[in-house]
Amino acid sequence: MSAQVRVKVDRLHQFVMKVLQTLDVPVADARITADVLLSADRRGIQSHGVARLKRYVDGIQKGIIRPQPEIRTVRETPVSLVIDGGGGLGQVIAYRTMQRCIAKAKDGYLCLATIRNSNHFGIAGFYALMALAEDLMGISMTNSAPMVVPTFARDAVIGTNPIAVGVPGKEEKAFFLDMATSTATRGKLEDYARKEAPIPESWACNEEGRPEKRAPHVLQNMLDRVGGGLFPLGGDGELGGGHKGYGLSALVDVFSGVLSGGAVGLDVYGKKGQPAEVCHFLGAIDPEIFIGREEIQNKIDYFMEMLRGAPRAGGQKRIFVAGEKEFEAEERNREVVPLQPKVYDNLSRIARESGTEFNIRV
Amino acid sequence: MSAQVRVKVDRLHQFVMKVLQTLDVPVADARITADVLLSADRRGIQSHGVARLKRYVDGIQKGIIRPQPEIRTVRETPVSLVIDGGGGLGQVIAYRTMQRCIAKAKDGYLCLATIRNSNHFGIAGFYALMALAEDLMGISMTNSAPMVVPTFARDAVIGTNPIAVGVPGKEEKAFFLDMATSTATRGKLEDYARKEAPIPESWACNEEGRPEKRAPHVLQNMLDRVGGGLFPLGGDGELGGGHKGYGLSALVDVFSGVLSGGAVGLDVYGKKGQPAEVCHFLGAIDPEIFIGREEIQNKIDYFMEMLRGAPRAGGQKRIFVAGEKEFEAEERNREVVPLQPKVYDNLSRIARESGTEFNIRV
Repeated sequence: MSAQVRVKVDRLHQFVMKVLQTLDVPVADARITADVLLSADRRGIQSHGVARLKRYVDGIQKGIIRPQPEIRTVRETPVSLVIDGGGGLGQVIAYRTMQRCIAKAKDGYLCLATIRNSNHFGIAGFYALMALAEDLMGISMTNSAPMVVPTFARDAVIGTNPIAVGVPGKEEKAFFLDMATSTATRGKLEDYARKEAPIPESWACNEEGRPEKRAPHVLQNMLDRVGGGLFPLGGDGELGGGHKGYGLSALVDVFSGVLSGGAVGLDVYGKKGQPAEVCHFLGAIDPEIFIGREEIQNKIDYFMEMLRGAPRAGGQKRIFVAGEKEFEAEERNREVVPLQPKVYDNLSRIARESGTEFNIRV
Repeated sequence: MSAQVRVKVDRLHQFVMKVLQTLDVPVADARITADVLLSADRRGIQSHGVARLKRYVDGIQKGIIRPQPEIRTVRETPVSLVIDGGGGLGQVIAYRTMQRCIAKAKDGYLCLATIRNSNHFGIAGFYALMALAEDLMGISMTNSAPMVVPTFARDAVIGTNPIAVGVPGKEEKAFFLDMATSTATRGKLEDYARKEAPIPESWACNEEGRPEKRAPHVLQNMLDRVGGGLFPLGGDGELGGGHKGYGLSALVDVFSGVLSGGAVGLDVYGKKGQPAEVCHFLGAIDPEIFIGREEIQNKIDYFMEMLRGAPRAGGQKRIFVAGEKEFEAEERNREVVPLQPKVYDNLSRIARESGTEFNIRV
């Protein structure tokens, strides 16, 4: 792979904000969207960072994403929200909903929110992290474009539907799980295609539903919508537990799409040129409703140390706990993030087309 | 495998109740425990059915499980419970707690409960099903004996920690996920050991943390506690997503053990001859707090039909949705369940030793 371009976080942030503002996104909403995108790049999840800006720009220009949506509360109880996102930017809808969840959790005990009629919201983890920053437990899930093939099927019906859950620690930042429910993501297949390397058997299947080692073949099939796609976590069939990953992906669709009265499975991104109708599920829970904040934080530290301290397998240097790698990347990339040259060039093109100043390199 | 013994459900139920009563378990609690065990056998999850009776009998006789525990409410809010099970039968503690969750969800909106100082509670799904029977959403998790090896480690630290979540449908019974967070269970390894068949690479590792195909070797290692054990869902390392299964298993420990102030990881079954300190997490949620019961039920039906209707992979006859296989088995085994001959013989021995009448065959 060619060397990455190092860019300044603050300038990249300003750039993203300005581009969105040229598309009639209000300044506060542009800031939220830039925050979420930059957070992904800083946390080392480049596939969900500014690499996606082009898609949001296109979406707004084509009228698929509304720059100034009417975000509507469909139903509310002291512990829950049902939100209609009005087809706006997923980041803005999810951020504002999580703010309300946090406020309700602080006033009361917890709040669970299900959201329909939204769009791609970036990394699921961002919204769970918002709760953690307030010493609450955070939950975030979303359905997504159908790319994952149910066990025993040969066509994609469900998304890579991520699950993020975090519980704050004391010295430790948090136990923080943020995972797609497929074995691998499309981004990983693209990496392997570039390297011209065969992909593992548990990653993807061809148009007949059989494990496929050629990444370009799978990617082309997905583009042409002729069948095949990603395997759920666990891979092909039931022997490696693929039916469990399939169940988890479907569960995320139930929490996001079913509970909100929104789109599920094939109906997400179901109509070309129409709003994508992505659905999310968010939650904020005050740990005081359980054994208490202090005791929970201490025990998170204790448990993480226990996991980390397990005897290592031959040749391994370190045992990680969910979230550690991303928190460390975030710290490392505080002021500067690396971008793939292709992403940098895309941003440069967006700058030209939108007439936005572009001076982000270190 | 030798032919299974067919036994009558009602007689087996009576037998289990009587045995427990000889051990000073009150009749109501004996009934609950028999209900949970029989439910597993009927649902086709034999490893968690009456095959486990011997362990409960031994546990009570050795004073590790208390037949008449003091179940204590440590903390309570309108939407939550923290329960100390007093070392009683896991089934009784979880059943009574779920009853309270259901009552609270019906009075209000939802109830989440975390439970410490309990014991093995049978199939996780049972308690989520209790909520479904009341048209509520149900959640159930538990930590368990350390048998699963964290990614990059070589010793087991966490359990097969199952997750069960159900949402009721209209014509459909429910979308109902009930899964261990390891790729396979110990029971599966025992099956392969009996068949003298090699196990798949993603199931288990040896004492050096490397994938191991010989089931008897892994099982002996686990017995001798010399290292190795089951892989989390996704298998070895990170390539097949094993770190995701590891994260899910740890998450269940956080919800069960951390939130209750109970035992986590190696501390579960940590002291030989002492109470096992198993912890659970249960939840009941009224779907009315989201888009509404009726609409959710209809959409569950719609989504299940969508999944089921996906084009099938070559050679496949049917695409399943989470829960279907177990609901069908339950229906099929309404009056008669099959038992493995070894299990039948064990029950017969328990009958002799406890002086209980034993006449359960069809």
